[in-house]
Amino acid sequence: MSVGESLTRLRERRPLIHQITNYVVMNETANATLALGALPVMAHAADEVEEMVGFAGALVLNIGTLSPHWVDAMISAGRAANERGVPVVLDPVGVGATRYRTDTAKRILETVRVAVLRGNAAEVATLAGVGAEMRGVESIAAGAGPAELAREAARSFELVAAVTGPVDHVSDGERAAAISNGHPMLATITGTGCMSSAVTGCFISVADSAFDGAVEALVAFGVAGEDAARDAKGPGSFHVNLYDALAALDPATIAGRARLS
Amino acid sequence: MSVGESLTRLRERRPLIHQITNYVVMNETANATLALGALPVMAHAADEVEEMVGFAGALVLNIGTLSPHWVDAMISAGRAANERGVPVVLDPVGVGATRYRTDTAKRILETVRVAVLRGNAAEVATLAGVGAEMRGVESIAAGAGPAELAREAARSFELVAAVTGPVDHVSDGERAAAISNGHPMLATITGTGCMSSAVTGCFISVADSAFDGAVEALVAFGVAGEDAARDAKGPGSFHVNLYDALAALDPATIAGRARLS
Amino acid sequence: MSVGESLTRLRERRPLIHQITNYVVMNETANATLALGALPVMAHAADEVEEMVGFAGALVLNIGTLSPHWVDAMISAGRAANERGVPVVLDPVGVGATRYRTDTAKRILETVRVAVLRGNAAEVATLAGVGAEMRGVESIAAGAGPAELAREAARSFELVAAVTGPVDHVSDGERAAAISNGHPMLATITGTGCMSSAVTGCFISVADSAFDGAVEALVAFGVAGEDAARDAKGPGSFHVNLYDALAALDPATIAGRARLS
Repeated sequence: MSVGESLTRLRERRPLIHQITNYVVMNETANATLALGALPVMAHAADEVEEMVGFAGALVLNIGTLSPHWVDAMISAGRAANERGVPVVLDPVGVGATRYRTDTAKRILETVRVAVLRGNAAEVATLAGVGAEMRGVESIAAGAGPAELAREAARSFELVAAVTGPVDHVSDGERAAAISNGHPMLATITGTGCMSSAVTGCFISVADSAFDGAVEALVAFGVAGEDAARDAKGPGSFHVNLYDALAALDPATIAGRARLS
Repeated sequence: MSVGESLTRLRERRPLIHQITNYVVMNETANATLALGALPVMAHAADEVEEMVGFAGALVLNIGTLSPHWVDAMISAGRAANERGVPVVLDPVGVGATRYRTDTAKRILETVRVAVLRGNAAEVATLAGVGAEMRGVESIAAGAGPAELAREAARSFELVAAVTGPVDHVSDGERAAAISNGHPMLATITGTGCMSSAVTGCFISVADSAFDGAVEALVAFGVAGEDAARDAKGPGSFHVNLYDALAALDPATIAGRARLS
Repeated sequence: MSVGESLTRLRERRPLIHQITNYVVMNETANATLALGALPVMAHAADEVEEMVGFAGALVLNIGTLSPHWVDAMISAGRAANERGVPVVLDPVGVGATRYRTDTAKRILETVRVAVLRGNAAEVATLAGVGAEMRGVESIAAGAGPAELAREAARSFELVAAVTGPVDHVSDGERAAAISNGHPMLATITGTGCMSSAVTGCFISVADSAFDGAVEALVAFGVAGEDAARDAKGPGSFHVNLYDALAALDPATIAGRARLS
């Protein structure tokens, strides 16, 4: 893996990233996808998700605002993605806060082969059966260390786990990477977790492996967060800068500024 | 009440504000909540609203884009909030424009104990049975003066009524406050009324009373609006500035700049 | 038609523009509507759309994120609009990508008298039965030239067709206009096509004819796009500037800068 290479491919191929995501962040994840150079499509009707995912380079499922028919559509789309070899990202927003969210995320993990599970420590810990404390969709604390948690979740679910936080930890059960890029201002606006899942979808659609793609995505998003914070006067201007920064990313910058271990 | 004190508490306690609101403003009210220092959660599924509201410091119900199952979820969440002592804000967006909106707002007022009713003059007048003229969700004119209207609605529904406009009027039926903070640019972007309801939810979750919280919320939001207008070139930059201004608020500024009578 | 005249009327009359649109762009099209000077209302419940459209100067239907009960509401609203002489704009987002979208757009065209069909070349080509290639909601290529396509679609469906792209083409089957205003940055954020449909709704609510309104709308939106690009550092700041630019438009500027043929 050469960090930054996938961005070059992304901009050449412009893959379609099919997102079934929550109402709060749809515009934001679509714009983050476009800013990177991929093409977003949001479609959630049972009548069309299987057909739509056939055009996609990746499918991103995000349970931030649930309804029963949305969950059914996520599973139909996920199964169709599996049949066609389209990699799936799952963002289990708020898992642990309510039984419905926990049951839904587990149901997706049981019925769909997920390539990357992207969540914060409490969300991943809840799914992995490690203790965690949630308040609403906000992670308060997780029992295990995040590096260990990523490895455990990866092994348990046979996927790549990306546990994001001040330092992001990615593991496929064997390999592990810690990414120190990013900025505290990313926590001051809603949807940056969801955006990082969408960006992960963009990168795994062109990367050599889901592990490589997840790592590159979090480096790229973290570098953009650092750039966005530079002249920000607060969360509003940071939010605007973030799209400018994502669009301005180039492969050499990502490779040069990656803080990986 | 010392205006500004609740903001200190809000940033210490970081309450979860559960919002069942309209599609148009979900991102905006979530970001306004975060900018102030509280934590937003949007959840509308019947399967989870009762559980979610149990973690919340306040519940905000907003009828801006209705569907039958959303209304049912609002009522379930509202009743659960009542049982657990979680204060409820109701924003009756567009009441008076269609029978469905009017009936829905009345149904919520009859089945849920609402702490603060936050609306414009025409919306509150419609609910209070005073004449009002609506066009869509826009208030054109209300019959009664807004101060009298706030008092009347407060008495009639046994809650705190916050009637917003060029001057905001808050009453619990006995006490009354008029708040002259704010800026005409707040009317140039969509969702500022909804944001003021979300901000009211933030403040009443920590204030000494719903009346105090509603007054402090409208002072704080008005001061942020004044700050946001300062360098705005139009509604787009005003919108961005508004989040920066909400995040930059501090208790002393709010107390010093409150225009209360 | 004097380009710019409708903007004067729009700001005097402040028509209500009823929009049944997709989740991704609701905030954006509402803010574009407000920035121009009209009043947006989003309402999609079967229980209220017929009543709401009675207050409207135009109805905008956008199929960007579909569900069965939303489609039913679009048709109810469209028929009520027809009965009351309220002009209807249809934005067939992603038509051709899935059978469901194509069937839905055709069903609307068959059951509702549409005044303006606003889409990209591939979308309009799909509906007009000319070959087109779609990927998700993105137009890749259309068979016919866009000017010819606009004329053909206009004749076939007996409406005004507005085919947008690097040059926009508007035709009512007899008259034709080509509009060269706009900027490539409009393609770097999501929802600018949807915004141009909302803006078309604003203008046809006050214009002398649907053809005039569609042309003026695309000139105005294109000029705003040019202004927004001037100091943009990327898609985030362009997006913000776009609302500022829409609000700053004045009739003389539009008339003077129109690039019409």
